[in-house]
Amino acid sequence: MKFHIMTLFPQIIEAYMSESIMKKAEEKGNIEYKTWNIRDYSESKHKKVDDYPYGGGAGMVMTPQPIVSCYNAVVDDLDESLKQDKKPKVIYLTPKGKVFNNDMAIALAKEESLILLCGHYEGVDQRVIDLIVDEEISIGDYVLTGGELPALILIDSISRHVKGVLGHEESLDEESFTNGLLEYPHYTRPEVFMEKEVPKVLLSGHHKNIESWRKLESIKLTMKLRPDLFDYEALSKEDKKLLKKHNVIDK
Amino acid sequence: MKFHIMTLFPQIIEAYMSESIMKKAEEKGNIEYKTWNIRDYSESKHKKVDDYPYGGGAGMVMTPQPIVSCYNAVVDDLDESLKQDKKPKVIYLTPKGKVFNNDMAIALAKEESLILLCGHYEGVDQRVIDLIVDEEISIGDYVLTGGELPALILIDSISRHVKGVLGHEESLDEESFTNGLLEYPHYTRPEVFMEKEVPKVLLSGHHKNIESWRKLESIKLTMKLRPDLFDYEALSKEDKKLLKKHNVIDK
Repeated sequence: MKFHIMTLFPQIIEAYMSESIMKKAEEKGNIEYKTWNIRDYSESKHKKVDDYPYGGGAGMVMTPQPIVSCYNAVVDDLDESLKQDKKPKVIYLTPKGKVFNNDMAIALAKEESLILLCGHYEGVDQRVIDLIVDEEISIGDYVLTGGELPALILIDSISRHVKGVLGHEESLDEESFTNGLLEYPHYTRPEVFMEKEVPKVLLSGHHKNIESWRKLESIKLTMKLRPDLFDYEALSKEDKKLLKKHNVIDK
Repeated sequence: MKFHIMTLFPQIIEAYMSESIMKKAEEKGNIEYKTWNIRDYSESKHKKVDDYPYGGGAGMVMTPQPIVSCYNAVVDDLDESLKQDKKPKVIYLTPKGKVFNNDMAIALAKEESLILLCGHYEGVDQRVIDLIVDEEISIGDYVLTGGELPALILIDSISRHVKGVLGHEESLDEESFTNGLLEYPHYTRPEVFMEKEVPKVLLSGHHKNIESWRKLESIKLTMKLRPDLFDYEALSKEDKKLLKKHNVIDK
């Protein structure tokens, strides 16, 4: 999978991509990325990329010409096969967008290529959105100084669902949100730390009991912390029995 | 305001903080930060920081000793005034946490200091959370390879509410979420770009009409894209009149 990132701050993207699991994913060839500096495509004398908003108000707005020219350069650079029918989606990162979640990460991981547009200052001229953007995505209900961190969030969470990026494929199955539940608590060595013990069941070697304990903790955590996510009806028959047996739900 | 970031990847934090508005905020003295490499505090021979999960399963869990020792070093390093009554909150970034939003950013911007704990791999041993963590925060319903991007999201969005960080204080007033609405569309030069024109009202110089147009666009966008955020009753009398006049809502 290949990410094209259009930004005024390519160094932010490159710094993150050169660290940790993303670097390994790139080295193994599972992920590719290319940054495009929007400023390079400005046709103005001083490589200007922003201007005052029409109608007044604070802050600056990114002008359309450099972004659209940059986009054209990205498209020119695509493999011939992608240029025709399978033109990659252009995603603009903005607090106004659809709120990103795990299901969207899984769906986007199936794309061959994605073009991410990072805004800065007050955002981009609306005509850029009308002309080239396919999808507006927000990573949450807060405002940031730019779209670079949101682009990295998308790249990171989407990449985890691209085959070969994570060492153990199965580590995706039990993590938060995958089955509509928050993940159970983790424990590792030592058995006792500052007088706090690891729950006995985890040391028992009894796989079925461990699985039940984890499922129960997951469900209790989700009910307590994220009742908005919890869906009793979506639980398996076995899980419903488990809840009844432990008096978590009296159904 | 000072951020302490406990992490296995301090270079990710430093790379972002040395770019863009965060760098300026630090130079002006509005924001300070310090990264703490958890690995430096491991007492094991090979500076080990993770181990297999008790009870089995994929992935590795961060062991408690290096994190708690690192935390003790952070506390030792605090100003005397903070060590006593005003010990900074310890925030653990995790998909299980309370979902971060703009109101939380505004509230946290009032703290003198914050300690952010970034997990990695499958997360930290539950006893770390029980022993030192005050608040668990999630930046959204998706899973990432580590807590570093979420920590930067918090730092960025909180910092914007620290006095002096943004150039124009007023640019906070009209952005998304501040008044429960998404922001209106922005336009800048040129007046016509690829045959697309700037809405006439924005060129009119008529401030009251511009304000009404923007408010109406904000409300319409919020109703369309984020009905979950929209609260008709919270609108001012004037805004309700505006909606009626433009046939947006028939009340």
